[in-house]
Amino acid sequence: MTEQKSTNVTWHAHAVSKEERCKLNGNKGAVLWFTGLSACGKSTIANAVDHRLHARGKHSFVLDGDNIRMGLNKNVDFSPEGRAENIRRIGEVAKLFASAGTLALTAFISPYRADRDKAREIMPAGEFIEIYVNASLETCEKRDPKGLYKKARAGEIKNFTGISDPYEAPTTPELTLDSNNKGIDELADEVVAYLEKNGLLSA
Amino acid sequence: MTEQKSTNVTWHAHAVSKEERCKLNGNKGAVLWFTGLSACGKSTIANAVDHRLHARGKHSFVLDGDNIRMGLNKNVDFSPEGRAENIRRIGEVAKLFASAGTLALTAFISPYRADRDKAREIMPAGEFIEIYVNASLETCEKRDPKGLYKKARAGEIKNFTGISDPYEAPTTPELTLDSNNKGIDELADEVVAYLEKNGLLSA
Repeated sequence: MTEQKSTNVTWHAHAVSKEERCKLNGNKGAVLWFTGLSACGKSTIANAVDHRLHARGKHSFVLDGDNIRMGLNKNVDFSPEGRAENIRRIGEVAKLFASAGTLALTAFISPYRADRDKAREIMPAGEFIEIYVNASLETCEKRDPKGLYKKARAGEIKNFTGISDPYEAPTTPELTLDSNNKGIDELADEVVAYLEKNGLLSA
Repeated sequence: MTEQKSTNVTWHAHAVSKEERCKLNGNKGAVLWFTGLSACGKSTIANAVDHRLHARGKHSFVLDGDNIRMGLNKNVDFSPEGRAENIRRIGEVAKLFASAGTLALTAFISPYRADRDKAREIMPAGEFIEIYVNASLETCEKRDPKGLYKKARAGEIKNFTGISDPYEAPTTPELTLDSNNKGIDELADEVVAYLEKNGLLSA
């Protein structure tokens, strides 16, 4: 915590620690990694959780297609290599938010197990919460809010997860949400309950 | 602020607004973009500012070589194209932090005016504060804490800003810090005073 007094001796930066940031924020810094098919509810649930946390004075932030795909990751494609780089960058940004004492909620299909595991590996143990938003292809295709499944079935979209590209479901996620049968509110409550139970909502 | 109640009608995400996040944090969300030669003091000053803000319960975070170059940007090089992509990504991440109601302090040489201007362009007016940490090449080379200038002079490091690569100083930065003649504490105080004066430390 000693501040640099001189300009010409050493120039090391003394950073505020993650623990100090968490103490100020009143919550742990961690990554909540939502994964699942398109239209399974990842982003909606993540935003509902974010709302609940914000209302309680906690510090969280959602990274999803809306703020990542047109910005940071506008120069990556949907090939396996592009998806890997997409997920790698998101994992690194989520880690930065966690370092800042924030609960970073990422909401991306992230279909490949290996890519998700890499995002996990850069985080300390217990600070990467993989949340499988489990909705069947049938359920998602019935919802199809943006008409993407319809286009994928018509061959207008290539490399579409669940149709022409694989989705590798998590084998041992920290949390599985039953999005076939439960609504947003109930599922968001389940996530918040998990965070509480695991001490992530206190510093 | 209406939450989604049903799982099968619409799936829009209702995000917490930037204003709501700032209100919780007690400060504006903005980007403080430090630029200057290697060893001019960017990262040290940014961290000193971060300490001061944290001590006052404000929410800030430093993006610098320590947490970016080995993570998010480990796959970009020091060519002009690589530097451009490096700065582009940093600008996008800083914008995300600002969206989260954080004062994002970026500390990178960022030698090219065009790259810095692009980082400015993605931010709302008044939320990109360019801070020129002005230290002469002579001053920086005398400090040379990591021996980089020595290596660059010996030809062991190529594309080194100020030696074998250009540095384009800002023409109209929001703030210029005289790092030739003033110490870290005084310069950090100048930055905090700027933030206060411009209403960035209240929500």
